[in-house]
Amino acid sequence: MDNRSLVSIDDYTKEEILEVLAKAAEFEKNPNSNILEGKVVSSLFFEPSTRTRLSFETAISRMGGRIVGFTDASSSSTTKGETLNDTIKMVSNYSDLIVMRHPIEGSARYASEVSDVPIINAGDGANQHPTQTMLDLYSIQKTQGTLENLNIFMVGDLKYGRTVHSLLMALSHFNPTFHFIAPKELEIPRGYKIFMDNNNIKYQEHTEFGSIINDADILYMTRVQRERFADPLEYEKVKNVYILKNDMLKDTRDNLRILHPLPRVNEIAMDVDANPKAYYFEQALNGVFARQAIIAKALDL
Amino acid sequence: MDNRSLVSIDDYTKEEILEVLAKAAEFEKNPNSNILEGKVVSSLFFEPSTRTRLSFETAISRMGGRIVGFTDASSSSTTKGETLNDTIKMVSNYSDLIVMRHPIEGSARYASEVSDVPIINAGDGANQHPTQTMLDLYSIQKTQGTLENLNIFMVGDLKYGRTVHSLLMALSHFNPTFHFIAPKELEIPRGYKIFMDNNNIKYQEHTEFGSIINDADILYMTRVQRERFADPLEYEKVKNVYILKNDMLKDTRDNLRILHPLPRVNEIAMDVDANPKAYYFEQALNGVFARQAIIAKALDL
Amino acid sequence: MDNRSLVSIDDYTKEEILEVLAKAAEFEKNPNSNILEGKVVSSLFFEPSTRTRLSFETAISRMGGRIVGFTDASSSSTTKGETLNDTIKMVSNYSDLIVMRHPIEGSARYASEVSDVPIINAGDGANQHPTQTMLDLYSIQKTQGTLENLNIFMVGDLKYGRTVHSLLMALSHFNPTFHFIAPKELEIPRGYKIFMDNNNIKYQEHTEFGSIINDADILYMTRVQRERFADPLEYEKVKNVYILKNDMLKDTRDNLRILHPLPRVNEIAMDVDANPKAYYFEQALNGVFARQAIIAKALDL
Repeated sequence: MDNRSLVSIDDYTKEEILEVLAKAAEFEKNPNSNILEGKVVSSLFFEPSTRTRLSFETAISRMGGRIVGFTDASSSSTTKGETLNDTIKMVSNYSDLIVMRHPIEGSARYASEVSDVPIINAGDGANQHPTQTMLDLYSIQKTQGTLENLNIFMVGDLKYGRTVHSLLMALSHFNPTFHFIAPKELEIPRGYKIFMDNNNIKYQEHTEFGSIINDADILYMTRVQRERFADPLEYEKVKNVYILKNDMLKDTRDNLRILHPLPRVNEIAMDVDANPKAYYFEQALNGVFARQAIIAKALDL
Repeated sequence: MDNRSLVSIDDYTKEEILEVLAKAAEFEKNPNSNILEGKVVSSLFFEPSTRTRLSFETAISRMGGRIVGFTDASSSSTTKGETLNDTIKMVSNYSDLIVMRHPIEGSARYASEVSDVPIINAGDGANQHPTQTMLDLYSIQKTQGTLENLNIFMVGDLKYGRTVHSLLMALSHFNPTFHFIAPKELEIPRGYKIFMDNNNIKYQEHTEFGSIINDADILYMTRVQRERFADPLEYEKVKNVYILKNDMLKDTRDNLRILHPLPRVNEIAMDVDANPKAYYFEQALNGVFARQAIIAKALDL
Repeated sequence: MDNRSLVSIDDYTKEEILEVLAKAAEFEKNPNSNILEGKVVSSLFFEPSTRTRLSFETAISRMGGRIVGFTDASSSSTTKGETLNDTIKMVSNYSDLIVMRHPIEGSARYASEVSDVPIINAGDGANQHPTQTMLDLYSIQKTQGTLENLNIFMVGDLKYGRTVHSLLMALSHFNPTFHFIAPKELEIPRGYKIFMDNNNIKYQEHTEFGSIINDADILYMTRVQRERFADPLEYEKVKNVYILKNDMLKDTRDNLRILHPLPRVNEIAMDVDANPKAYYFEQALNGVFARQAIIAKALDL
């Protein structure tokens, strides 16, 4: 495997995370440059994801790079029966870097093993989405001044949400206290609790969503995604339970910031948007800078 | 609302129309530049429209800008239940300008109210398509030497055709005489007649399509669009009635030019294409320059 | 017709083929340039073809050009009933060059007759795909040091495979000896045999696929494409017959190189990929340089 690929957030050490965050801060100051001049980045979206794709394409464009690729599998050769191996081998001959999104878990790791150029995983099924984690970390660091010793509250779908799991792993370097707020059916998986126990990471679980958030530094809301449920009835039961409304924020800390990986459906009421503690749209913008930093590291620029 | 957005042709005063047309003439002389260097334009097509999209993308590319976006809603986040509000808020954080096409009337106005960057409306349902109007005006001015005191004949679908309505409103600044040629079912809506009456604008209505056009300076043909009809039988009845054939042009004025917003289906016979009075393909090219001027104005360049 | 278009490989003389191959070798040395600065290329894919599209878009991007277009017909105006004539007339007003892929045979020739700018045919149905032929020739010349007097073995679908037919025609300038290995149902069409007979080109036909390949300089494998068969049962009968496995290569010539237009399904076993005689992924990369040369010639650069 080319070790400049970013497949999982675990590919970065704590030092590398901090290095990339520092780089992101530099890109935020100067997003427009020509450091990708003459480079072609393949943007391979085997399933659609506007937000992530636009964020990457903006990042690349502002760095002066060129983009080729596809936005969903229907316009790819996979419809002719081509294997992922062959698609990646071909494309890695064409381009200087590959950004890929794929519905199958493990596909990004596999791609990184057959590619001659670095792979950046833009999401592989329910598995990993490390660039989302990096923009989350960047948003936390930027709003709190540090990543260390924070009270992190995570709300919603903690069972299936890959962004939650990756953020948990990444923050484990920084002595967090976690609070997990979810219905029983969507609680944080047992494997993560064992991990936290083994690493002396403090955490509490809650089912009610109320004044408990008054201690939070970061409130990380997640969407209960219809597509993750085998049984639609189970989805209907929980979808309206963990909704953040503006009046729930009146006794929260001044430094509290509300994050959400977006898109939201209704889990954050519209009246929260005007609250200065709402940070999810700025968070999305941070994604451009975080991705610029990740690309620069992958290409050793 | 950001007053540099262009949502409706009515957002421009007469002076602004003339200013943008003058700018378009400059871009026609020098279409290639770098004035959008370092800028990212989001091109958000919630419904497909090749012609308009390619025209905008060519305009932006020739100005040195970069484009990110999507070409139809199926590859956008709206399939995950995201609101237009959230999509626009996110994208306006990424980019310097948004070009958007949306099937719902009023969506562009709404977007301009939530966006931090200017919105250019590339068509919102049956409502407005102001960049089409500007390229129509530019084509008229360029071929007639003026916009003032012209005989403008509009033919076809005058009831549903938004390009007709917007062009009518825009030309009302320039003392036109209108002739409307349409079947009863597709005649110009009553509201526009009241407007013309109130503003002393001369107009006549006709149902026959023949030698009446010998007085025309501009013959504006429109497509009877299948998708605008609730009842397919009504469409079948009228679709072949108002067809321009080359022999109808033999006694028309030398300065007559035939415009069409395109795509045409069969409302202009192929034998008209070789007639020097046919101007619709040049008109499409004018769209590139008109859009460059509109973009430059929106960004205050 | 604009004689700078490339619709069929027969549009090039032997001298032009060699001229373009020499140009491709130069582009291979310096793929990144700005010779397309200020140029807009329309990339019109009326049917999807990732490989060809990405190859063209990479070629254009590395030359500093801009790309506008569509990746499948569903996002084109043809869904509104527009003729190919009108689409091409409009687009040729916008852009400096058109690359087009279309499912209907003859469409590229037709387009070249109505376009004001050169057309490069990126495949028109079962008819022609001349840029594939040029990259095949470039790959042969690069690996063998010459195009003259080679033993060319072609395997698989020789009846429907347009890449086979075009390569046969192009190589006929260079005194080849052909061996055709195919089942009876997919043998090389009679018209090509008459052509070879008339031009004193040596060829043999085989149905078995074995030690006969030990004499080959080039082994050109092709995919038996499901979509070319009217009867799916006929496809099932032949699809697994002509599969290349690594142990079949042990007594072949050192200079043998295996080509394949890609995508492959299973006609080349995965264990061949590691054999130094496997050349199909490098061949795909050669497509970028061959297309850069073709574009440069079309634009007289």
